Amino acid sequence: MDYEGYFADRLSGLKNEGRYRVFADLERQVGEFPKALNHRDGKAHDVTIWCSNDYLGMGTHQVVLDAMAEAVRSNGAGAGGTRNISGTNHYHVLLEDELASWCQKDAALLFTSGYVANMTTLMTLGAQIPELVIFSDSDNHNSMIEGIRHSRAAKEIFRHNDIAHLESLLAKYPKEHPKMIAFESVYSMEGDIAPIKEICDLAEKYNAMTYLDEVHAVGMYGLTGSGVAERDGQLDRITIYQATMGKAIGVVGGFIAGSSSVVDFVRSFGAGFIFTTSLPPAVAAAALASVRFLKEHNELRVRHQERAQTVIRRLREVGLPVMNTVSHIVPLMVGDAARCKMASDLLLQRHNIYVQPINYPTVPKGTERLRITATPLHTDAHIDHLVHALIDVWQYLGIERQAAA
Amino acid sequence: MDYEGYFADRLSGLKNEGRYRVFADLERQVGEFPKALNHRDGKAHDVTIWCSNDYLGMGTHQVVLDAMAEAVRSNGAGAGGTRNISGTNHYHVLLEDELASWCQKDAALLFTSGYVANMTTLMTLGAQIPELVIFSDSDNHNSMIEGIRHSRAAKEIFRHNDIAHLESLLAKYPKEHPKMIAFESVYSMEGDIAPIKEICDLAEKYNAMTYLDEVHAVGMYGLTGSGVAERDGQLDRITIYQATMGKAIGVVGGFIAGSSSVVDFVRSFGAGFIFTTSLPPAVAAAALASVRFLKEHNELRVRHQERAQTVIRRLREVGLPVMNTVSHIVPLMVGDAARCKMASDLLLQRHNIYVQPINYPTVPKGTERLRITATPLHTDAHIDHLVHALIDVWQYLGIERQAAA
Ligand SMILES: Cc1ncc(COP(=O)(O)O)c(C=O)c1O
Ligand SMILES: Cc1ncc(COP(=O)(O)O)c(C=O)c1O
Repeated sequence: MDYEGYFADRLSGLKNEGRYRVFADLERQVGEFPKALNHRDGKAHDVTIWCSNDYLGMGTHQVVLDAMAEAVRSNGAGAGGTRNISGTNHYHVLLEDELASWCQKDAALLFTSGYVANMTTLMTLGAQIPELVIFSDSDNHNSMIEGIRHSRAAKEIFRHNDIAHLESLLAKYPKEHPKMIAFESVYSMEGDIAPIKEICDLAEKYNAMTYLDEVHAVGMYGLTGSGVAERDGQLDRITIYQATMGKAIGVVGGFIAGSSSVVDFVRSFGAGFIFTTSLPPAVAAAALASVRFLKEHNELRVRHQERAQTVIRRLREVGLPVMNTVSHIVPLMVGDAARCKMASDLLLQRHNIYVQPINYPTVPKGTERLRITATPLHTDAHIDHLVHALIDVWQYLGIERQAAA
Repeated sequence: MDYEGYFADRLSGLKNEGRYRVFADLERQVGEFPKALNHRDGKAHDVTIWCSNDYLGMGTHQVVLDAMAEAVRSNGAGAGGTRNISGTNHYHVLLEDELASWCQKDAALLFTSGYVANMTTLMTLGAQIPELVIFSDSDNHNSMIEGIRHSRAAKEIFRHNDIAHLESLLAKYPKEHPKMIAFESVYSMEGDIAPIKEICDLAEKYNAMTYLDEVHAVGMYGLTGSGVAERDGQLDRITIYQATMGKAIGVVGGFIAGSSSVVDFVRSFGAGFIFTTSLPPAVAAAALASVRFLKEHNELRVRHQERAQTVIRRLREVGLPVMNTVSHIVPLMVGDAARCKMASDLLLQRHNIYVQPINYPTVPKGTERLRITATPLHTDAHIDHLVHALIDVWQYLGIERQAAA
């Protein structure tokens, strides 16, 4: 076989479909967010970022940076080992305690990322619990899908957020049969939110565990910010809470929270937890400072929601096709891969606005979109700029706008 | 099903087998390494670490810490997104260039860890290349095993470092049949090293790709430190080089290096690369500083090897059972899980020396061991202390020492 030829062929396939990804080379600048430098064509351009998952700007918040820099000075760079072999640092212990109490659970466990948290936990439970059936929302994130698939557990896929369909699948199994329902709270490409209470009602009725991914909600919902389950008063009904420290918390890493025994079980049997270098002490210190701050500052969440609502209103006023969303995510439908990429390129080149195009496989073909995220640091002037830039780009591409909504 | 009861049962099974893991809660201290604080029984104890994978002490090296702290101050904490969606930072780009040139390859790609690098790359190639057969060393790390397994590619397992067995398996397939040989350079629990040249000879003869994990060699072997393939003059014969930034480089994260097309292929199709928040800019900056330093400072490698050899010699002189090792890894055979744990506990409690016991599943049952690692920062006095402590513990446990070797 000609390996190089094979790789090259597959890559040109992507290019022909307009799906080949080119990464924007950014340089974040503390004090300037949501502005950043964009290195392209040998120059550094000033751009405004409108697609960051640093949803609350905590990634450049002074409280977080001070904690991180201080831990670098005192504890150094890396942890120096896996959690078991010299790599457990005191900051890991403090952070796990803090996360557990935030999520109203007995225990929490850190992973190198939210991806690894999902993959490892679902893989471990699916492979270890005899006969487990996993009921998985059809729109679940790739990290959940891979974890379930890799576990080789039986699975039933229910239509996205469709309670009736979920119940019909649960009802196929005797009550004693081991079951787990795996779903997300905020779905990040649509902006819709799962009916957590109704899902927990079904879990109770059919004796299923619940596994909830709050990656796009953590820090942003609930009075202390632990997510939508907190907001909806359902935290105690969630068997395993999962989230990331890489988005609203502003750092990197993932975690789960749950009963002492389920957390200890994953700690003891999860290969993706055991066989890997642990997070740097400074990363744990930064996340700890961020979580402590987020718990106490609900006004950041209020401002965040207001900014998102303002962007949605302003875009709809000028007839731009904001999709239905009930969260802070603002998806703008384009519906075509090449045009979506072009819209993004024009925003960058003509307006120094950076919104990455979202194409297949992240979203289904034909639903390509611009996914806009506002942060508490986006001002009215930034929003004006965005609205005018989008009007210009729509015009340039000859896309009609709708009647103002 | 009673889920909580099931988890509790499985955990007490581990406890009964003496395999339940208790993590040592450490606090690293810049300027003190290999000393650290160990939090236990409500107190902080001064201990000497003899099992760190921060092999060269770069995790507390001032050059690395300055780069990391400076990047925190300028670029902030987290990257703010996946590589594709606002999460590519200029430091990622610079680091990938540096790693590619270090490994004498066209391109390199960062992952959140060495674990994810192995898992994602092997999973992606195994799943995407039609008919690929992966020839895997029987002692390969869990991250490689999981990646191969998850890919569902056909696999052939060859006996550890056994060239004749590998050849007999390769010969079963026609030359045109797609093949990849996956192996490590330094095997970290034994300290032995793969016959890289002989494996590459076979790869050439049978037209197989080579996939080499240099996780426990990177930074430590070869004139510029990129690993054993560099030392052995075989780098150009390695299709995919893989390593971690969490061990000798002293930070966290993983990477691969290879031809532009194979790297771009994994970048474009690897789910574990695409769907996850990228490494913090400060982590990339720290790794970049570390790699640049390591390239230029071969004397650190010379000193490291000398320290390891001195420990081996000193332990053998007093009849302690150092296993056969041809690398910097110093494994001391105990051969029983409970006794191995006890030896480790005694070292900590009686001597403030921290060496984690290595039990199943990390090593086969009956081969439980203490795995000792020396760094350039361990002094003769530290070595004296270690030797005397081990003699005391062997005596305390009533284990006979061998005749001096
Ligand atoms: C729903 C969901 N879960 C998990 C993850 C993975 O989290 P992390 O970025 O920390 O790997 C993501 C995206 O990154 C996500 O969107
Ligand atoms: C051989 C080998 N490969 C890969 C890894 C994973 O690397 P990382 O710690 O960066 O996840 C390890 C251990 O951690 C290892 O021993």
